[in-house]
Amino acid sequence: MTFISQNIANFVDKKNRLPAHLMNLRAAAIAANIPIISDQVSAFLAVQLALIKPRQILEIGTAIGYSGALLLHYSAAHLTTIELDDSRYRQACQNFADLGLNERVTTLLGDAEQLLAELVKQRYDLIFIDAAKAHYLDYFKMAERLLFENGVIIADNVLLRGYLAGEPHIRRQRTANGRMNNFINYASQHQAFETALLTIGDGVLISVKRKYNE
Amino acid sequence: MTFISQNIANFVDKKNRLPAHLMNLRAAAIAANIPIISDQVSAFLAVQLALIKPRQILEIGTAIGYSGALLLHYSAAHLTTIELDDSRYRQACQNFADLGLNERVTTLLGDAEQLLAELVKQRYDLIFIDAAKAHYLDYFKMAERLLFENGVIIADNVLLRGYLAGEPHIRRQRTANGRMNNFINYASQHQAFETALLTIGDGVLISVKRKYNE
Repeated sequence: MTFISQNIANFVDKKNRLPAHLMNLRAAAIAANIPIISDQVSAFLAVQLALIKPRQILEIGTAIGYSGALLLHYSAAHLTTIELDDSRYRQACQNFADLGLNERVTTLLGDAEQLLAELVKQRYDLIFIDAAKAHYLDYFKMAERLLFENGVIIADNVLLRGYLAGEPHIRRQRTANGRMNNFINYASQHQAFETALLTIGDGVLISVKRKYNE
Repeated sequence: MTFISQNIANFVDKKNRLPAHLMNLRAAAIAANIPIISDQVSAFLAVQLALIKPRQILEIGTAIGYSGALLLHYSAAHLTTIELDDSRYRQACQNFADLGLNERVTTLLGDAEQLLAELVKQRYDLIFIDAAKAHYLDYFKMAERLLFENGVIIADNVLLRGYLAGEPHIRRQRTANGRMNNFINYASQHQAFETALLTIGDGVLISVKRKYNE
Protein backbone atom coordinates (compact mmCIF):
# COMPACT_ATOMS: atom_id res chain seq x y z
CA MET A 1 0.00 0.00 0.00
CA THR A 2 2.91 2.35 0.62
CA PHE A 3 6.67 2.62 0.11
CA ILE A 4 7.46 3.54 3.71
CA SER A 5 8.09 0.70 6.16
CA GLN A 6 4.97 -0.15 8.17
CA ASN A 7 6.76 0.31 11.52
CA ILE A 8 7.62 3.87 10.60
CA ALA A 9 4.20 4.68 9.19
CA ASN A 10 2.49 3.46 12.39
CA PHE A 11 4.93 5.30 14.63
CA VAL A 12 4.57 8.58 12.75
CA ASP A 13 0.77 8.36 12.61
CA LYS A 14 0.60 7.94 16.39
CA LYS A 15 2.53 11.17 16.90
CA ASN A 16 0.50 13.19 14.39
CA ARG A 17 -2.85 13.53 16.19
CA LEU A 18 -6.10 14.86 14.71
CA PRO A 19 -9.02 16.59 16.47
CA ALA A 20 -12.05 14.42 17.34
CA HIS A 21 -14.47 15.70 14.67
CA LEU A 22 -11.92 14.87 11.97
CA MET A 23 -11.27 11.44 13.47
CA ASN A 24 -15.00 10.70 13.26
CA LEU A 25 -15.23 11.76 9.62
CA ARG A 26 -12.07 9.78 8.88
CA ALA A 27 -13.61 6.65 10.44
CA ALA A 28 -16.80 7.08 8.41
CA ALA A 29 -14.81 7.41 5.19
CA ILE A 30 -12.73 4.33 5.92
CA ALA A 31 -15.89 2.34 6.79
CA ALA A 32 -17.48 3.36 3.46
CA ASN A 33 -14.27 2.56 1.54
CA ILE A 34 -13.88 6.17 0.35
CA PRO A 35 -10.24 7.09 -0.27
CA ILE A 36 -9.09 9.97 1.97
CA ILE A 37 -5.82 11.77 2.61
CA SER A 38 -3.43 9.85 4.86
CA ASP A 39 -2.72 10.92 8.45
CA GLN A 40 0.74 12.13 7.61
CA VAL A 41 -0.59 14.28 4.76
CA SER A 42 -3.11 15.71 7.24
CA ALA A 43 -0.30 16.71 9.60
CA PHE A 44 1.69 18.17 6.71
CA LEU A 45 -1.32 20.22 5.53
CA ALA A 46 -1.96 21.50 9.07
CA VAL A 47 1.55 22.92 9.28
CA GLN A 48 1.52 24.31 5.74
CA LEU A 49 -1.78 26.05 6.51
CA ALA A 50 -0.19 27.63 9.60
CA LEU A 51 2.50 29.05 7.31
CA ILE A 52 0.33 30.01 4.33
CA LYS A 53 -2.56 31.49 6.34
CA PRO A 54 -4.83 31.26 3.28
CA ARG A 55 -8.00 33.30 2.86
CA GLN A 56 -9.23 31.43 -0.20
CA ILE A 57 -8.64 27.73 -0.80
CA LEU A 58 -9.63 25.74 -3.89
CA GLU A 59 -9.84 21.96 -3.66
CA ILE A 60 -10.09 19.68 -6.70
CA GLY A 61 -11.62 16.42 -5.45
CA THR A 62 -14.00 16.82 -2.49
CA ALA A 63 -14.77 13.12 -1.92
CA ILE A 64 -16.92 13.21 1.24
CA GLY A 65 -15.39 16.42 2.60
CA TYR A 66 -12.80 15.03 4.99
CA SER A 67 -9.83 16.94 3.56
CA GLY A 68 -12.09 19.99 3.15
CA ALA A 69 -13.04 19.89 6.83
CA LEU A 70 -9.34 19.63 7.68
CA LEU A 71 -8.40 22.57 5.44
CA LEU A 72 -11.06 24.64 7.22
CA HIS A 73 -10.08 23.46 10.72
CA TYR A 74 -6.48 24.62 10.32
CA SER A 75 -7.23 27.95 8.63
CA ALA A 76 -9.67 30.84 8.65
CA ALA A 77 -10.20 30.43 4.90
CA HIS A 78 -13.20 30.05 2.64
CA LEU A 79 -13.11 26.77 0.71
CA THR A 80 -14.32 26.18 -2.84
CA THR A 81 -14.34 22.45 -3.55
CA ILE A 82 -15.14 20.47 -6.70
CA GLU A 83 -16.49 16.91 -6.93
CA LEU A 84 -17.48 14.88 -10.00
CA ASP A 85 -19.43 12.09 -8.31
CA ASP A 86 -23.00 12.98 -7.37
CA SER A 87 -23.29 10.60 -4.42
CA ARG A 88 -20.02 11.75 -2.84
CA TYR A 89 -20.96 15.37 -3.48
CA ARG A 90 -24.22 14.95 -1.56
CA GLN A 91 -22.45 13.14 1.27
CA ALA A 92 -19.89 15.97 1.47
CA CYS A 93 -22.63 18.63 1.58
CA GLN A 94 -24.25 16.72 4.45
CA ASN A 95 -20.94 16.42 6.32
CA PHE A 96 -20.14 20.13 5.93
CA ALA A 97 -23.64 20.97 7.21
CA ASP A 98 -23.28 18.60 10.17
CA LEU A 99 -19.99 20.27 11.10
CA GLY A 100 -21.54 23.75 10.89
CA LEU A 101 -19.22 24.67 8.00
CA ASN A 102 -21.83 25.65 5.39
CA GLU A 103 -20.99 29.35 5.44
CA ARG A 104 -17.32 28.67 4.80
CA VAL A 105 -17.71 26.24 1.88
CA THR A 106 -18.80 26.50 -1.75
CA THR A 107 -19.39 22.97 -3.06
CA LEU A 108 -19.38 22.51 -6.84
CA LEU A 109 -20.63 19.39 -8.64
CA GLY A 110 -19.19 18.61 -12.05
CA ASP A 111 -16.12 18.05 -14.18
CA ALA A 112 -13.12 19.84 -12.67
CA GLU A 113 -11.66 21.06 -15.96
CA GLN A 114 -15.00 22.54 -17.05
CA LEU A 115 -15.58 24.17 -13.68
CA LEU A 116 -12.02 25.51 -13.44
CA ALA A 117 -12.40 27.11 -16.87
CA GLU A 118 -15.45 28.95 -15.54
CA LEU A 119 -13.53 30.42 -12.59
CA VAL A 120 -12.48 33.67 -14.24
CA LYS A 121 -12.27 36.29 -11.53
CA GLN A 122 -11.49 34.16 -8.49
CA ARG A 123 -8.00 33.84 -7.06
CA TYR A 124 -6.73 31.45 -4.38
CA ASP A 125 -3.88 31.31 -1.85
CA LEU A 126 -3.86 27.51 -1.86
CA ILE A 127 -5.04 24.99 -4.44
CA PHE A 128 -5.17 21.37 -3.29
CA ILE A 129 -5.27 18.73 -6.05
CA ASP A 130 -6.59 15.30 -5.03
CA ALA A 131 -8.69 14.08 -7.97
CA ALA A 132 -8.32 12.06 -11.21
CA LYS A 133 -4.60 11.22 -11.32
CA ALA A 134 -4.44 11.19 -15.13
CA HIS A 135 -5.34 14.90 -15.20
CA TYR A 136 -2.91 16.36 -12.66
CA LEU A 137 -0.92 18.21 -15.34
CA ASP A 138 -4.10 19.79 -16.71
CA TYR A 139 -5.25 20.76 -13.22
CA PHE A 140 -1.85 22.28 -12.40
CA LYS A 141 -1.80 24.38 -15.58
CA MET A 142 -5.29 25.66 -14.87
CA ALA A 143 -4.39 26.27 -11.23
CA GLU A 144 -1.44 28.45 -12.24
CA ARG A 145 -3.64 31.28 -13.46
CA LEU A 146 -5.93 30.99 -10.41
CA LEU A 147 -3.22 31.68 -7.83
CA PHE A 148 -2.51 34.88 -5.96
CA GLU A 149 1.12 36.03 -5.83
CA ASN A 150 2.94 33.66 -3.45
CA GLY A 151 0.13 31.16 -3.86
CA VAL A 152 0.72 27.47 -3.27
CA ILE A 153 -0.31 24.30 -5.13
CA ILE A 154 -0.24 20.98 -3.25
CA ALA A 155 -0.96 17.68 -5.03
CA ASP A 156 -1.54 14.37 -3.22
CA ASN A 157 -0.80 10.75 -4.27
CA VAL A 158 1.76 11.73 -6.90
CA LEU A 159 3.99 8.67 -6.38
CA LEU A 160 1.14 6.25 -7.23
CA ARG A 161 2.02 3.85 -4.38
CA GLY A 162 5.57 3.66 -5.62
CA TYR A 163 4.65 2.31 -9.07
CA LEU A 164 5.92 5.52 -10.60
CA ALA A 165 9.44 4.87 -9.31
CA GLY A 166 9.67 1.37 -10.69
CA GLU A 167 8.02 -0.74 -8.01
CA PRO A 168 6.47 -3.85 -9.67
CA HIS A 169 3.21 -3.05 -11.44
CA ILE A 170 0.76 -4.34 -14.03
CA ARG A 171 1.08 -3.20 -17.62
CA ARG A 172 -1.90 -0.84 -17.73
CA GLN A 173 -0.15 1.19 -15.05
CA ARG A 174 2.28 2.45 -17.72
CA THR A 175 0.08 5.21 -19.11
CA ALA A 176 -0.75 6.40 -15.60
CA ASN A 177 2.96 6.46 -14.70
CA GLY A 178 3.87 8.39 -17.85
CA ARG A 179 1.22 11.01 -17.24
CA MET A 180 2.15 11.52 -13.59
CA ASN A 181 5.84 11.68 -14.49
CA ASN A 182 5.10 14.43 -17.03
CA PHE A 183 3.21 16.33 -14.34
CA ILE A 184 6.05 16.07 -11.81
CA ASN A 185 8.61 17.17 -14.41
CA TYR A 186 6.49 20.12 -15.45
CA ALA A 187 5.99 21.33 -11.87
CA SER A 188 9.56 20.76 -10.68
CA GLN A 189 11.10 22.49 -13.70
CA HIS A 190 8.67 25.44 -13.67
CA GLN A 191 10.67 28.63 -13.15
CA ALA A 192 7.82 30.50 -11.47
CA PHE A 193 7.58 27.98 -8.63
CA GLU A 194 9.76 26.56 -5.88
CA THR A 195 8.79 22.87 -5.92
CA ALA A 196 9.51 19.82 -3.78
CA LEU A 197 8.53 16.19 -4.31
CA LEU A 198 8.17 14.57 -0.88
CA THR A 199 7.79 10.99 0.38
CA ILE A 200 4.85 11.90 2.62
CA GLY A 201 1.86 9.54 2.53
CA ASP A 202 1.58 8.32 -1.05
CA GLY A 203 3.77 11.15 -2.32
CA VAL A 204 3.07 14.88 -2.09
CA LEU A 205 4.19 17.62 -4.46
CA ILE A 206 4.24 21.22 -3.23
CA SER A 207 4.86 24.25 -5.46
CA VAL A 208 5.17 27.77 -4.05
CA LYS A 209 4.84 30.63 -6.50
CA ARG A 210 7.80 32.96 -6.31
CA LYS A 211 7.49 36.68 -6.20
CA TYR A 212 10.13 37.95 -8.61
CA ASN A 213 10.58 41.33 -6.97
CA GLU A 214 11.72 39.92 -3.62
CA MET B 1 20.41 3.58 5.70
CA THR B 2 16.82 4.76 5.35
CA PHE B 3 13.26 3.52 5.80
CA ILE B 4 12.08 4.56 2.34
CA SER B 5 12.53 2.09 -0.52
CA GLN B 6 15.67 2.81 -2.52
CA ASN B 7 13.74 3.01 -5.81
CA ILE B 8 11.61 5.80 -4.42
CA ALA B 9 14.49 7.66 -2.81
CA ASN B 10 16.45 7.66 -6.10
CA PHE B 11 13.42 8.72 -8.12
CA VAL B 12 12.55 11.58 -5.79
CA ASP B 13 16.15 12.82 -5.57
CA LYS B 14 16.36 13.03 -9.36
CA LYS B 15 13.31 15.32 -9.46
CA ASN B 16 14.50 17.60 -6.64
CA ARG B 17 17.42 19.45 -8.25
CA LEU B 18 19.95 21.70 -6.50
CA PRO B 19 21.93 24.66 -7.91
CA ALA B 20 25.53 23.99 -8.98
CA HIS B 21 27.35 25.70 -6.09
CA LEU B 22 25.39 23.58 -3.61
CA MET B 23 26.07 20.41 -5.61
CA ASN B 24 29.80 21.15 -5.38
CA LEU B 25 29.70 21.67 -1.62
CA ARG B 26 27.57 18.54 -1.27
CA ALA B 27 30.15 16.51 -3.23
CA ALA B 28 32.99 17.85 -1.05
CA ALA B 29 31.12 16.91 2.13
CA ILE B 30 30.37 13.41 0.89
CA ALA B 31 34.03 12.94 -0.17
CA ALA B 32 35.17 14.00 3.33
CA ASN B 33 32.59 11.76 5.01
CA ILE B 34 30.87 14.73 6.69
CA PRO B 35 27.16 14.07 7.32
CA ILE B 36 24.93 16.56 5.49
CA ILE B 37 21.20 17.04 5.01
CA SER B 38 19.67 14.70 2.45
CA ASP B 39 18.51 15.91 -0.96
CA GLN B 40 14.86 15.56 -0.07
CA VAL B 41 15.35 17.63 3.10
CA SER B 42 17.05 20.26 0.93
CA ALA B 43 14.01 20.41 -1.34
CA PHE B 44 11.70 20.57 1.66
CA LEU B 45 13.71 23.42 3.21
CA ALA B 46 13.72 25.35 -0.10
CA VAL B 47 9.92 25.32 -0.21
CA GLN B 48 9.51 26.09 3.50
CA LEU B 49 11.86 29.07 3.09
CA ALA B 50 9.71 30.33 0.20
CA LEU B 51 6.74 30.26 2.60
CA ILE B 52 8.46 31.54 5.75
CA LYS B 53 10.51 34.31 4.06
CA PRO B 54 12.78 34.53 7.11
CA ARG B 55 14.92 37.55 7.91
CA GLN B 56 16.86 35.88 10.72
CA ILE B 57 17.76 32.19 10.76
CA LEU B 58 19.51 30.30 13.56
CA GLU B 59 21.17 26.98 12.80
CA ILE B 60 22.35 24.55 15.49
CA GLY B 61 24.99 22.36 13.83
CA THR B 62 26.95 24.06 11.04
CA ALA B 63 29.07 21.07 9.98
CA ILE B 64 30.92 22.44 6.92
CA GLY B 65 28.25 24.97 5.99
CA TYR B 66 26.33 23.04 3.35
CA SER B 67 22.89 23.43 4.94
CA GLY B 68 23.80 27.01 5.86
CA ALA B 69 24.61 27.83 2.23
CA LEU B 70 21.29 26.30 1.25
CA LEU B 71 19.34 28.29 3.85
CA LEU B 72 20.94 31.45 2.45
CA HIS B 73 20.41 30.50 -1.19
CA TYR B 74 16.65 30.11 -0.74
CA SER B 75 16.10 33.20 1.43
CA ALA B 76 17.25 36.78 1.89
CA ALA B 77 18.00 36.07 5.55
CA HIS B 78 20.98 36.56 7.83
CA LEU B 79 22.21 33.26 9.26
CA THR B 80 23.65 32.67 12.72
CA THR B 81 25.12 29.18 12.90
CA ILE B 82 26.71 27.22 15.76
CA GLU B 83 29.34 24.46 15.52
CA LEU B 84 31.12 22.54 18.30
CA ASP B 85 33.93 21.01 16.28
CA ASP B 86 36.87 23.32 15.60
CA SER B 87 37.96 21.69 12.34
CA ARG B 88 34.46 21.71 10.83
CA TYR B 89 33.96 25.27 12.02
CA ARG B 90 37.06 26.42 10.17
CA GLN B 91 36.04 24.50 7.05
CA ALA B 92 32.59 26.13 7.18
CA CYS B 93 34.10 29.63 7.53
CA GLN B 94 36.25 28.92 4.47
CA ASN B 95 33.25 27.64 2.49
CA PHE B 96 31.10 30.66 3.37
CA ALA B 97 33.98 32.96 2.33
CA ASP B 98 34.48 31.09 -0.95
CA LEU B 99 30.77 31.47 -1.74
CA GLY B 100 30.85 35.22 -0.98
CA LEU B 101 28.45 34.75 1.93
CA ASN B 102 30.55 36.26 4.74
CA GLU B 103 28.36 39.32 5.18
CA ARG B 104 25.25 37.19 5.60
CA VAL B 105 26.62 34.72 8.17
CA THR B 106 27.63 34.85 11.82
CA THR B 107 29.57 31.67 12.65
CA LEU B 108 29.85 30.70 16.31
CA LEU B 109 32.24 28.07 17.67
CA GLY B 110 31.32 26.31 20.90
CA ASP B 111 28.75 24.31 22.83
CA ALA B 112 25.25 25.00 21.51
CA GLU B 113 23.52 25.08 24.89
CA GLN B 114 26.05 27.56 26.28
CA LEU B 115 25.88 29.75 23.19
CA LEU B 116 22.06 29.63 23.03
CA ALA B 117 21.90 30.76 26.68
CA GLU B 118 23.97 33.81 25.71
CA LEU B 119 21.55 34.83 22.94
CA VAL B 120 19.38 37.15 25.01
CA LYS B 121 18.09 39.86 22.69
CA GLN B 122 18.12 38.05 19.37
CA ARG B 123 14.98 36.61 17.81
CA TYR B 124 14.66 34.32 14.77
CA ASP B 125 12.02 33.46 12.17
CA LEU B 126 13.45 29.99 11.63
CA ILE B 127 15.59 27.77 13.85
CA PHE B 128 17.07 24.70 12.21
CA ILE B 129 18.25 21.93 14.56
CA ASP B 130 20.77 19.46 13.11
CA ALA B 131 23.26 18.72 15.91
CA ALA B 132 23.78 16.26 18.82
CA LYS B 133 20.66 14.06 18.68
CA ALA B 134 20.64 13.43 22.46
CA HIS B 135 20.03 17.14 23.06
CA TYR B 136 17.16 17.90 20.70
CA LEU B 137 14.69 18.44 23.55
CA ASP B 138 17.06 20.92 25.25
CA TYR B 139 17.64 22.74 21.95
CA PHE B 140 13.91 22.93 21.26
CA LYS B 141 13.14 24.37 24.71
CA MET B 142 15.85 26.98 24.30
CA ALA B 143 14.68 27.72 20.75
CA GLU B 144 11.14 28.43 21.95
CA ARG B 145 12.11 31.69 23.63
CA LEU B 146 14.26 32.73 20.65
CA LEU B 147 11.42 32.68 18.11
CA PHE B 148 9.50 35.60 16.72
CA GLU B 149 5.71 35.26 16.66
CA ASN B 150 4.86 32.75 13.90
CA GLY B 151 8.43 31.50 14.02
CA VAL B 152 9.30 27.99 12.89
CA ILE B 153 11.51 25.23 14.30
CA ILE B 154 12.66 22.45 11.98
CA ALA B 155 14.65 19.45 13.28
CA ASP B 156 16.41 16.92 11.04
CA ASN B 157 17.15 13.19 11.54
CA VAL B 158 14.50 12.71 14.20
CA LEU B 159 13.60 9.14 13.17
CA LEU B 160 17.18 7.91 13.75
CA ARG B 161 17.23 5.81 10.55
CA GLY B 162 14.06 4.08 11.63
CA TYR B 163 15.52 2.70 14.89
CA LEU B 164 13.16 4.93 16.83
CA ALA B 165 10.13 3.16 15.37
CA GLY B 166 11.31 -0.32 16.19
CA GLU B 167 13.58 -1.23 13.28
CA PRO B 168 16.26 -3.69 14.52
CA HIS B 169 19.00 -1.95 16.50
CA ILE B 170 21.79 -2.57 18.98
CA ARG B 171 21.15 -2.16 22.69
CA ARG B 172 23.01 1.11 23.21
CA GLN B 173 20.53 2.66 20.79
CA ARG B 174 17.87 2.49 23.53
CA THR B 175 18.88 5.65 25.38
CA ALA B 176 19.08 7.57 22.10
CA ASN B 177 15.62 6.31 21.12
CA GLY B 178 14.13 7.27 24.49
CA ARG B 179 15.54 10.76 24.35
CA MET B 180 14.39 11.39 20.78
CA ASN B 181 10.95 9.99 21.57
CA ASN B 182 10.65 12.42 24.49
CA PHE B 183 11.59 15.27 22.18
CA ILE B 184 8.99 14.31 19.55
CA ASN B 185 6.27 13.95 22.20
CA TYR B 186 7.13 17.31 23.71
CA ALA B 187 7.03 19.11 20.37
CA SER B 188 3.93 17.39 19.01
CA GLN B 189 1.92 17.94 22.19
CA HIS B 190 3.02 21.57 22.64
CA GLN B 191 -0.07 23.79 22.53
CA ALA B 192 1.80 26.85 21.23
CA PHE B 193 2.90 25.04 18.06
CA GLU B 194 1.37 23.29 15.07
CA THR B 195 3.69 20.31 14.62
CA ALA B 196 4.14 17.54 12.05
CA LEU B 197 6.46 14.54 12.07
CA LEU B 198 7.32 13.70 8.46
CA THR B 199 9.02 10.77 6.71
CA ILE B 200 11.31 13.06 4.71
CA GLY B 201 14.98 12.04 4.56
CA ASP B 202 15.81 10.51 7.94
CA GLY B 203 12.72 12.07 9.53
CA VAL B 204 11.94 15.77 9.85
CA LEU B 205 9.91 17.49 12.55
CA ILE B 206 8.45 20.94 11.85
CA SER B 207 6.77 23.14 14.47
CA VAL B 208 5.10 26.42 13.56
CA LYS B 209 4.37 28.83 16.42
CA ARG B 210 0.74 29.84 16.48
CA LYS B 211 -0.39 33.38 16.92
CA TYR B 212 -3.22 33.17 19.42
CA ASN B 213 -4.94 36.35 18.30
CA GLU B 214 -5.55 35.16 14.75
